[in-house]
Amino acid sequence: MSENTPVILTELVKLHPADLADQLQRLPLEEAIAILPEIPPPLAARALSELEHDRQREFLLSLPSQKLPPLLSELPPDLVADLVPELPPSVRRATLDAIPAEQRRRVQSLLRYAPDTAGGIMSDRFIALRADMTVDEVRKLLLSQGEDKQSQDVAYLYVTDEARRLMGIVSLRDLIFRRSDARMGDILNRDVKFLRVDDDQEKIAQQFQHYHYLGLPVLDKEGRLVGVVKASDALEVAQAEATEDMQLMVGLSGEERALTPWRTSIRRRLPWLYINLGTAFLAAFVVGLFESAIAKWTALAIFLPIIAGQGGNAGMQTLTVIVRDLALGEISPGDGRRALAKEMILALVNGIAVGVVVGLIGWWWKDSLTLGLVAFLAMILNQLSAAFAGVAIPFGLKAVRVDPALASSIFVTTVTDVAGFFFFLGLAVLAMRWFGM
Amino acid sequence: MSENTPVILTELVKLHPADLADQLQRLPLEEAIAILPEIPPPLAARALSELEHDRQREFLLSLPSQKLPPLLSELPPDLVADLVPELPPSVRRATLDAIPAEQRRRVQSLLRYAPDTAGGIMSDRFIALRADMTVDEVRKLLLSQGEDKQSQDVAYLYVTDEARRLMGIVSLRDLIFRRSDARMGDILNRDVKFLRVDDDQEKIAQQFQHYHYLGLPVLDKEGRLVGVVKASDALEVAQAEATEDMQLMVGLSGEERALTPWRTSIRRRLPWLYINLGTAFLAAFVVGLFESAIAKWTALAIFLPIIAGQGGNAGMQTLTVIVRDLALGEISPGDGRRALAKEMILALVNGIAVGVVVGLIGWWWKDSLTLGLVAFLAMILNQLSAAFAGVAIPFGLKAVRVDPALASSIFVTTVTDVAGFFFFLGLAVLAMRWFGM
Repeated sequence: MSENTPVILTELVKLHPADLADQLQRLPLEEAIAILPEIPPPLAARALSELEHDRQREFLLSLPSQKLPPLLSELPPDLVADLVPELPPSVRRATLDAIPAEQRRRVQSLLRYAPDTAGGIMSDRFIALRADMTVDEVRKLLLSQGEDKQSQDVAYLYVTDEARRLMGIVSLRDLIFRRSDARMGDILNRDVKFLRVDDDQEKIAQQFQHYHYLGLPVLDKEGRLVGVVKASDALEVAQAEATEDMQLMVGLSGEERALTPWRTSIRRRLPWLYINLGTAFLAAFVVGLFESAIAKWTALAIFLPIIAGQGGNAGMQTLTVIVRDLALGEISPGDGRRALAKEMILALVNGIAVGVVVGLIGWWWKDSLTLGLVAFLAMILNQLSAAFAGVAIPFGLKAVRVDPALASSIFVTTVTDVAGFFFFLGLAVLAMRWFGM
Repeated sequence: MSENTPVILTELVKLHPADLADQLQRLPLEEAIAILPEIPPPLAARALSELEHDRQREFLLSLPSQKLPPLLSELPPDLVADLVPELPPSVRRATLDAIPAEQRRRVQSLLRYAPDTAGGIMSDRFIALRADMTVDEVRKLLLSQGEDKQSQDVAYLYVTDEARRLMGIVSLRDLIFRRSDARMGDILNRDVKFLRVDDDQEKIAQQFQHYHYLGLPVLDKEGRLVGVVKASDALEVAQAEATEDMQLMVGLSGEERALTPWRTSIRRRLPWLYINLGTAFLAAFVVGLFESAIAKWTALAIFLPIIAGQGGNAGMQTLTVIVRDLALGEISPGDGRRALAKEMILALVNGIAVGVVVGLIGWWWKDSLTLGLVAFLAMILNQLSAAFAGVAIPFGLKAVRVDPALASSIFVTTVTDVAGFFFFLGLAVLAMRWFGM
């Protein structure tokens, strides 16, 4: 560590955990690891839980394993449950065994849920009240829990029955304004929106965006209240989901960042480049079928980039709209036909509008009306294929329960390339025969 | 209206405004317009404010202008301020004049802020307290405001000085647990994160994601408290921002939905297709420069789709990561050199890995070691151009204060096409001269 570390350190410990995490993210790994033990465990633990996954993993791999339990003990169970899967498998068991029993029980209970479901995202810290409690009793209960156990961010209190099933919610406002002897059962609001433990990220983001609540209760299959998701957690989920959609479309993992180490990026990107290569050879194969036509009429080769470029761009336009709307639930699988109809009309009009320009330029540039006509027709067919692929591929992936975004741009451009080249070169061959060229 | 409208209607009026908006979104426009007057104005107004922009505009255009003021009077000022810009200009003035004076004043005050800034997104409904007020006085104040004026979603109360500058926050918990005679000035928390009125959508989403608050106060240039943004509004903003990034990249408006009427879509997409066409002709022009080489060696034409496909996919991978990280503030303009260095190393390794396969296939397929070598080298140069364009274009757009996402996929694929074809065909011509082909 450099000489001025002490100076940095006194600044670092004053930071908000999220800001400290930013600093730890930017420092070289060795320096960050060296600094961590100097930071008070509660702050260090919070900052650790705010790091990005890649860096979190690096940290957890590099920390001496006996340092882990004291650090994790400082975190609430839901944040520990987020970190456990990132622990090196060799120390996972021992680390869990070394944290306090009650915390371990709660962490293990949360670990039963997949990380991208409401169960995996929720916190198990909430206040459950019985229906027969009075306002005064609840005030005393909250007071006894103390400031530190309960975050300032509690927006709602939950009333449950003897089987822990959710009956309704009571707001903090009620505790201020209702008579001290009013009972929860009489003042609760029964019209409560909620999540199920197995609701996925998309559903969670949708519910928050739709209803604008600050928090939503999470129920298990029996209707029992098991956790709470906050709006700010939903925001993080929505960002992660949007990033994943954008990245999956072009053959990225969904977890890549600009400064992810290049070795990690290689492992994630190269397989998709190879898949893309396979599909590119498919397009090349189609061009190869028409090699003798191109040998006779090399102007055809010049138009290949235009066919590929226009089909690719139009296909990406359609695909992007469909993937996003499917992800946010703004269209459902049943809307496929309507979406397709719209995109086909659009493609026809766009195809004519673009085709006329391409046709005229082709006619003028190569002084060949035939080339112009072939380019015009091919452009229309190309746009129609792009629209079809841009709708059919994400809806198809959704139907077989694969993320509609998954590498879909690679598949869509394959279709637009293959169909585009086939129509363009095929029409050219027909024209050459027709006019005896 | 069909006979069974009354049946539907009794169901519709029981819905949450957001769910009613969903229904109105799905009905044919004429039917939806016909139903609206039958719905109690408070619910109808809320639902109207939840509609998507395109549909909102259609509604506001179709409603008789005298129906607008009673409807808008039901909404809080921030929601009216969101709707006013969507009103037909001809009725905007008259509608504003016809709503109650106090509401009009607040709406006009909110309209001073651009819609995609904290000022445009915030609500002006918040509770500001003086530092010398006691807990008991504040409880009475809240009670006097009544349940209807104040949403259940208040999480924090704000303490301001005589110049309305923010001094700190007090939580509802404090009102329950602090002594009745405690003064706000003594119990407030001064370490408050806040937004500025001109902070943009990205900044707002970042702050919420970073600090996990349920709400953030908004200050004007003089530090005066002028509004509050809730976490759920930030979620909506983050979704809109992510959608915009995805859509702008491929030449969409950022506002398109799968079921946007096709006439609207045409107006938004066709201009970008024409721009893409211009760039495609640039690539075609490069191919045209080598027309005589292709005439001699038509196998070159077959490899064009592979060059374009691999460069395009690699460029999109880099671009997507960079655009997303710039948008979420995870990298800053100063990180450009580091990001570029990483992507260039990655491109070199990917280029060799992909180039070897392409080269071997080229050698085997066309039985030409020369073709294989040319393809191998061209693929490496192509990947390097893709990485350079994928970093330089979004950083460049950001530097000139344009959204880094804007049509960037069109620009990146132009570079990968033009550079890819130039390197591949240029190397082929050199090889042909060298080996006297």
